[in-house]
Amino acid sequence: MSERFEADYILRTAAPDAAKAAAVIAGEQSSGTFLATPGLDRAAHAAARVEALEPLPDDGARPLPGGMAGPLSRWKLTLSWPLDTIGPSLPNLAATVAGNLYELKQVSGLKLIDLRLPHAFAETYPGPAFGVAGTRQIAGVAEGPLIGTIIKPSVGLSPEETAEMAADLCAGDIDFIKDDELQADGPACPFDDRLRAVSEVLNRHADRTGRKPLYAINLTGEIDEMRRRHDAVLAAGGNCVMVSLNSVGLAGLTALRRHSQLPIHAHRNGWGALGRSEDNGWSYPAWAKLWRIAGVDHMHVNGLANKFWESDDSVIASARSMATPLWDDAPMTVLPVFSSGQTIYQVHETLNRLGNTDLIHCAGGGIVAHPSGIAAGVAALRSAWTAAMAGISLEQAARNNHDLRVACETYA
Amino acid sequence: MSERFEADYILRTAAPDAAKAAAVIAGEQSSGTFLATPGLDRAAHAAARVEALEPLPDDGARPLPGGMAGPLSRWKLTLSWPLDTIGPSLPNLAATVAGNLYELKQVSGLKLIDLRLPHAFAETYPGPAFGVAGTRQIAGVAEGPLIGTIIKPSVGLSPEETAEMAADLCAGDIDFIKDDELQADGPACPFDDRLRAVSEVLNRHADRTGRKPLYAINLTGEIDEMRRRHDAVLAAGGNCVMVSLNSVGLAGLTALRRHSQLPIHAHRNGWGALGRSEDNGWSYPAWAKLWRIAGVDHMHVNGLANKFWESDDSVIASARSMATPLWDDAPMTVLPVFSSGQTIYQVHETLNRLGNTDLIHCAGGGIVAHPSGIAAGVAALRSAWTAAMAGISLEQAARNNHDLRVACETYA
Repeated sequence: MSERFEADYILRTAAPDAAKAAAVIAGEQSSGTFLATPGLDRAAHAAARVEALEPLPDDGARPLPGGMAGPLSRWKLTLSWPLDTIGPSLPNLAATVAGNLYELKQVSGLKLIDLRLPHAFAETYPGPAFGVAGTRQIAGVAEGPLIGTIIKPSVGLSPEETAEMAADLCAGDIDFIKDDELQADGPACPFDDRLRAVSEVLNRHADRTGRKPLYAINLTGEIDEMRRRHDAVLAAGGNCVMVSLNSVGLAGLTALRRHSQLPIHAHRNGWGALGRSEDNGWSYPAWAKLWRIAGVDHMHVNGLANKFWESDDSVIASARSMATPLWDDAPMTVLPVFSSGQTIYQVHETLNRLGNTDLIHCAGGGIVAHPSGIAAGVAALRSAWTAAMAGISLEQAARNNHDLRVACETYA
Repeated sequence: MSERFEADYILRTAAPDAAKAAAVIAGEQSSGTFLATPGLDRAAHAAARVEALEPLPDDGARPLPGGMAGPLSRWKLTLSWPLDTIGPSLPNLAATVAGNLYELKQVSGLKLIDLRLPHAFAETYPGPAFGVAGTRQIAGVAEGPLIGTIIKPSVGLSPEETAEMAADLCAGDIDFIKDDELQADGPACPFDDRLRAVSEVLNRHADRTGRKPLYAINLTGEIDEMRRRHDAVLAAGGNCVMVSLNSVGLAGLTALRRHSQLPIHAHRNGWGALGRSEDNGWSYPAWAKLWRIAGVDHMHVNGLANKFWESDDSVIASARSMATPLWDDAPMTVLPVFSSGQTIYQVHETLNRLGNTDLIHCAGGGIVAHPSGIAAGVAALRSAWTAAMAGISLEQAARNNHDLRVACETYA
């Protein structure tokens, strides 16, 4: 097997010879050790290769602690490995492209920014079962974004109070409801009780209207718990499950995906610890590839003008990457989820910058804090999208639309 | 249920009022949202609480990108949450103590440095099945460290070549052998073939000598793969399995632990992305608590004067934390694994600073590059420990010990 997989990094190093530093990194992540040992010659075919090392302008970031002393240089580094040494295994891919290398003294900053993987991964892993088209079909939303919200407060509602909130959201004609990532299966709001109470509301609403919003119920937990909860959701007529990726890990998500018959809404909480540092960890598009291959259907990408640290450019780059095919015959594209401090004010710019409406737009306070109530909040957000899609400005659309006008005043 | 769990952080913030920033963090991680929403009063009982906020001297670290503008202040922050909202669930604990909070604008740096958890976690999770005493018993090493090595080169050896190396290590009377984390189940060295070839060697050695080194074979992969591989190891007379924690995740490790009848050797590769930044992510002792509760038996802690970035102080703090009980009746202590650029030269200082010999001391080149061969390399490292434990200096011990003297010359 001669196929190789590749990873791109932004490397910062104080090593006087960056090419040598790159070789040390490649060695650490394949056949190397710190002292000459017998057998290394036999292992030459398994070595990682430095495919490219291109200088980049310094960004002035402070070096990570413990690196070599001296002036820093900054590089785009591409490494490749023979697939033969790991096979198409995501967990072992992670250990190889994002393992010990972050800890080398030659590294004063290292960010994994892209991965290119052989087709064997597409033959081994299922990718998303629903993705954009499948999710649209279940939600009954043929065009425009899915308008969504998060059950708030995040925690503290009983199952019955959660169901009341779901009833209000149904009455408001919402497309998508999700649990907060902090709400899973605590004694204060057990999963089974919440599922029962909310399902009753959703099913009644569907019987009456023929429409059932997607409800991404948070089943995050141990493998057996997640499988059992998934089955309970299916039995209750549910149509989506949510999971915290960093909480369950790649093997956990894969086990869920191989069992699941429902769209998997992936929550990225904890991502900041892996991705916020400029000079350490992962870029989100690269990290998301692992989860897309493992089989999630929706990936959070934050939102424009969000309440978090992230720039709009970074959010849009993440969202675009979700629609970029991984392989021609296995694109594994997923639905980006825009959320965090979202209101009608981010709609036009989101459409303008993303260029399409294949997304879930989640607003919490941006819907339920509408003074005329939830239905008005949903209607206002949807009207903003309808206007944007028709090329009509928010101000113009608000003139003849009471709910939208009130929203404009409320969220100004 | 009135029990609460607590997390300590080092917080850096540019918020003019740090107490307000702390409240925002607590709100984000419990019942808050960014706008006043109905129901928040009902959720007050579920709120996270700021238990302490103590000023710390600034450390001059650059702020994380995207935080608020303004001068930085640095704090030790303690938050608490009611257990009632999550129950004793490690995945949901992770989402709560290490979730979205890293991404807040109020955060210009956040490191999770400790966790204090109610006893309910000890009732829910098994913790290590073997730990220090169990591992010593299986390895037949009553006192002193387990002398270990890594099969090198990391990748590139066939199953037969790996077995040859294992045979040499057995002949050298090693206590512990581990796969490299890059070697799992690739086509070039399939797990089953490697297991078969190495087991034959180990079993033959055991038949002859009555002694079988621990062999931590790397079974990292999907859940079903790991369970199947574990069973194969057990059937082959194996005595240890190794897994890459970041590759499989908490749910993956828990599934393995609940299935396993063998000590679990935990590899932390990828840790650097979570822990090397001074101002982002986790401290290792805090992060390791999750895995100890989930049930690993050995945790890597790097080594003194290692080839990586980490300071000796940090290494020793990590190792000590592994021996610190989590609960009186469920200490969940694990065996620290010292490795990375280790030779006879780190022995005295390791004992001096750790204060005991409950550890695995892994040397790669530090054993196999000994000019007189592997047996001499193992003997030299063990002699260094015997000397240290007897209060004899390396120089003095080397005078009457040929292998040790050669090691001193080789690794100087």
